[in-house]
Amino acid sequence: MDKMDHINIQQVLEQTVQETVSEAEKGEVASYIPELARQDKRRLGISVCLKDGTLLSAGDAHLPFTLQSISKIFSLMVALCEHGERYVFERVGKEPTGDPFNSIIKLETIKPHKPLNPMINAGAIAVAGMIPGATVEKRLEKIMRLLRKMTGNPELRVNYDVYQSEKQTADRNRALAYFLKESKILSGDVEETLDLYFRHCSIEVTTVEVARLAAILAADGYDIVSGEQLLPREVARICKTFMVTCGMYNASGEFAIDVGIPAKSGVAGGIMASVPQRMGLGVFGPALDEKGNSVAGVKLLQRLSDMWDLSIF
Amino acid sequence: MDKMDHINIQQVLEQTVQETVSEAEKGEVASYIPELARQDKRRLGISVCLKDGTLLSAGDAHLPFTLQSISKIFSLMVALCEHGERYVFERVGKEPTGDPFNSIIKLETIKPHKPLNPMINAGAIAVAGMIPGATVEKRLEKIMRLLRKMTGNPELRVNYDVYQSEKQTADRNRALAYFLKESKILSGDVEETLDLYFRHCSIEVTTVEVARLAAILAADGYDIVSGEQLLPREVARICKTFMVTCGMYNASGEFAIDVGIPAKSGVAGGIMASVPQRMGLGVFGPALDEKGNSVAGVKLLQRLSDMWDLSIF
Amino acid sequence: MDKMDHINIQQVLEQTVQETVSEAEKGEVASYIPELARQDKRRLGISVCLKDGTLLSAGDAHLPFTLQSISKIFSLMVALCEHGERYVFERVGKEPTGDPFNSIIKLETIKPHKPLNPMINAGAIAVAGMIPGATVEKRLEKIMRLLRKMTGNPELRVNYDVYQSEKQTADRNRALAYFLKESKILSGDVEETLDLYFRHCSIEVTTVEVARLAAILAADGYDIVSGEQLLPREVARICKTFMVTCGMYNASGEFAIDVGIPAKSGVAGGIMASVPQRMGLGVFGPALDEKGNSVAGVKLLQRLSDMWDLSIF
Amino acid sequence: MDKMDHINIQQVLEQTVQETVSEAEKGEVASYIPELARQDKRRLGISVCLKDGTLLSAGDAHLPFTLQSISKIFSLMVALCEHGERYVFERVGKEPTGDPFNSIIKLETIKPHKPLNPMINAGAIAVAGMIPGATVEKRLEKIMRLLRKMTGNPELRVNYDVYQSEKQTADRNRALAYFLKESKILSGDVEETLDLYFRHCSIEVTTVEVARLAAILAADGYDIVSGEQLLPREVARICKTFMVTCGMYNASGEFAIDVGIPAKSGVAGGIMASVPQRMGLGVFGPALDEKGNSVAGVKLLQRLSDMWDLSIF
Repeated sequence: MDKMDHINIQQVLEQTVQETVSEAEKGEVASYIPELARQDKRRLGISVCLKDGTLLSAGDAHLPFTLQSISKIFSLMVALCEHGERYVFERVGKEPTGDPFNSIIKLETIKPHKPLNPMINAGAIAVAGMIPGATVEKRLEKIMRLLRKMTGNPELRVNYDVYQSEKQTADRNRALAYFLKESKILSGDVEETLDLYFRHCSIEVTTVEVARLAAILAADGYDIVSGEQLLPREVARICKTFMVTCGMYNASGEFAIDVGIPAKSGVAGGIMASVPQRMGLGVFGPALDEKGNSVAGVKLLQRLSDMWDLSIF
Repeated sequence: MDKMDHINIQQVLEQTVQETVSEAEKGEVASYIPELARQDKRRLGISVCLKDGTLLSAGDAHLPFTLQSISKIFSLMVALCEHGERYVFERVGKEPTGDPFNSIIKLETIKPHKPLNPMINAGAIAVAGMIPGATVEKRLEKIMRLLRKMTGNPELRVNYDVYQSEKQTADRNRALAYFLKESKILSGDVEETLDLYFRHCSIEVTTVEVARLAAILAADGYDIVSGEQLLPREVARICKTFMVTCGMYNASGEFAIDVGIPAKSGVAGGIMASVPQRMGLGVFGPALDEKGNSVAGVKLLQRLSDMWDLSIF
Repeated sequence: MDKMDHINIQQVLEQTVQETVSEAEKGEVASYIPELARQDKRRLGISVCLKDGTLLSAGDAHLPFTLQSISKIFSLMVALCEHGERYVFERVGKEPTGDPFNSIIKLETIKPHKPLNPMINAGAIAVAGMIPGATVEKRLEKIMRLLRKMTGNPELRVNYDVYQSEKQTADRNRALAYFLKESKILSGDVEETLDLYFRHCSIEVTTVEVARLAAILAADGYDIVSGEQLLPREVARICKTFMVTCGMYNASGEFAIDVGIPAKSGVAGGIMASVPQRMGLGVFGPALDEKGNSVAGVKLLQRLSDMWDLSIF
Repeated sequence: MDKMDHINIQQVLEQTVQETVSEAEKGEVASYIPELARQDKRRLGISVCLKDGTLLSAGDAHLPFTLQSISKIFSLMVALCEHGERYVFERVGKEPTGDPFNSIIKLETIKPHKPLNPMINAGAIAVAGMIPGATVEKRLEKIMRLLRKMTGNPELRVNYDVYQSEKQTADRNRALAYFLKESKILSGDVEETLDLYFRHCSIEVTTVEVARLAAILAADGYDIVSGEQLLPREVARICKTFMVTCGMYNASGEFAIDVGIPAKSGVAGGIMASVPQRMGLGVFGPALDEKGNSVAGVKLLQRLSDMWDLSIF
């Protein structure tokens, strides 16, 4: 691929979007959050941010969507930067799980009662609990500041309607949070931490911004656009590792075999994929498979991985 | 036993208390609710309410303690009387479980997500959610009114300190409740239902009152003292059945074999035991075994069951 | 009922069989054992053995069927008589479980890895492992001898076709047995113990014989026909207790509420029900509900319990 | 590292072995297989096979040990080559699990009853069942032939004592196998498939051979020594992906973060680690941590990964 010029890449993106958009028929938009249920399931967009900072897009690349679980990567970044690895991993594990993202079983069966990893809901809520600040707004600001710096978009904001919608339909997450509180994994006010969690899940982006975020992770934290190291290399690597072992819910193993790129998906239909040292990809396709991943988005990434040999394995 | 006179019974009670009080050394008072942790673990008391209404007591029979899980029987009674069997058992099951009383696992693994029975915490919270009323106070009043009528004690009240203590240390119960809310088993405000649950658990009694409650259950709802049928026979039978299959937490099977009396225990150290058609027993001994049952209380009941042939089997 | 004469009882039995036989339409014969799958699902029969030894029957009371799980009660009797309570309950628990009869999960999750009770398959295999003897034949003989004595039928035998059929389709039971072997609950040869287990499950009876077995349990081990105490009272009581807490698979709690008689069912469609101090009942109806209990048989017992007030609660 | 010459690499290996050998004190040799329990826990050896085929070793690199779970990679290779991806992954999943390697729970809870991945015991037994052949010997021969070709060692053989020892202490594996048989994942004779599984686990190697195996995987199936493509690139990639997501038992996630190299460990103390396009590593250190991985071996790989920047993330 290194030899391909930008025109070629652009053509491949457009053609592949066209070829895979119909996959969306096999999926359904997320129904459990009313605001998400309204999306048009036939949308599909992709942006690529190359090593040199070049941004190329195809399809519905400029439609806004919320990060949802993709945001778990960035709250983890903030927690790691604020507290260091030791503190964070005393409260959340590093292991993938065969259970669904919202499962509560392992919280009870595993001793000590620690979420298995920061990508499942229990783990991400535990991480949200580690973001310091006097108010929810100030805690959110820590995540927003990082995301604005990484995307270069100072306008980045929370989609208030989605946030409200999540907040009102989140009793399973409340169950997880109170279990964590009981187990001393969460301290402080549970509703405030959940509030922070719902907010960071509701941050609105486009594939362009997700591609930039992915590219910085691909470059181990270095941002070619600003010329700055925006996060420690070690933090970037930890994030990419979680993206491989548990970034695609309990289809992570299959995605690793079929696509082979560190990636994180969200139930709004987004996928952030980082090809180490090569490129970042942002994908949006709201029709989800039964595991919660964008059907057409996964197919699109699989095609590109095959063509461009993007697998890390 | 029918031929024994009251003096004999009184002597047996006193002697058996003396012989079993030292069993308390093997247990510990409940530690997870601070107010309960303060109790003196060497206490042991018993009251018996015979078929003819005669009340006999021995040991620490006049010390107040809170009903805790024993109250689950009475909230179930109210729910059954208010809504009927069908409504209640569409929302909570009838099956014993091998899991601990506060386990959340089966809520996730069993489809539909219905608590297995009304004696585990998840089931009792579901039942609390069925008690109707405009406010928590009015809902509690329904349970209090029944208990006051059954005990003949119009002064019965909630121990406010224990209630506060429970409320502040109840995050596992919150987790259960929000899971039930998510599963549509609970409707209405979760915190209000939990508040009701903590209050009815904190109703203060003595073994005398518990013996009277047990005697009415033993007589299928008929109260010899007032000469009234205080609850439908069918409701009394359902309660006694749950007392056998799941009244003693996950030691119910063992208790059924060793003692054989329908009984319900609470973590404050109380046990309510109903010998069908014969007598009601109230026991108090705050030192608990690892399953949550009064160590000395169980031993005391086992001795009496052996001597008086109280097993229903 | 005590005042009813035999003619009345006979009439009630015949009429109730007629009224409930159509319930069989709602169930299906057991399909996992090929020999059982061949049964005619519309059969329904009942026998009652009264306190005075009188035997009354209605419907298909003389059709042979295999004991299946009902036999677990009798292997437990032999184990208790051979080794005593302490030995037996060190290797198998006394607690009911919310899991299906063939579940393996709790063997792994509960420490020590002991089956929860002797009525689930894991527990019954553990009990089979306790029956002593130099060969499988001699071990089986211990159970057969007890059953022949209790039923008064010296011709009682294993249905060889059913036994062969079970043996060839029993890999889940093998999985349970090897797990028990690993956990040191089973010692000795696993295939031999399984062979014994399949054989005692395949003992062929009619409802007449099951009613007699039930009557002896109802009379705490005393056999009115022979005038002998055939088993210790304590053993009879333990068996009846397990029949209440876990005799009807994971519908035991519901059966206890709806019918209230200690009972044990088998997947061939048999139910053995013991009304303490009053009567034994044997029922056969091969159409099973999804929990594995005879649909029409349960209904028939429920009607009789309502009419004759047979509930122990 | 590319600029380092062989002398430097040799020095680093020797020094790092010296620095990490004392880590073994924190672990214990595997105790559940008697033959393995006899090993000297202070051993530590490593071999590296570079891209150009150069082999360098340090420490106890010439001590023989058995592959144990490392062999799961090679039985998977044979199954994939014989049957193709589709056939194999219809019978075994691709997802990591948070459960221990010998857990049976998910076999029951996940529908259909398919092992989550081929690296846990249940999955590897399922894979062994896919290796075709008229006899166990012929089936084993398929794996041996591949291993002999890859290692270039025609003398490779099964350690008979370890095989016998495993076979006699393998009841948990038998439980898994019979569960798989029940679920139609395994067909054919269970004991024969287990026999094959125990044999391929007992193949004896040294770190030199493991390093060569790892190097061929690192080179996507190409063997620099023979100049041949020994297995399809796609098969090599699938294997490396499983090594990342579930190669180090339920410490795979932690290893991916701390070391970042696709690796597979075995309870005899071996680790096979493949750095894509760069090198293969073979490590032996029999003292295991509580997850079943070589304590000193993991530390040694972590040091080298840090120094030589071997992480794929």
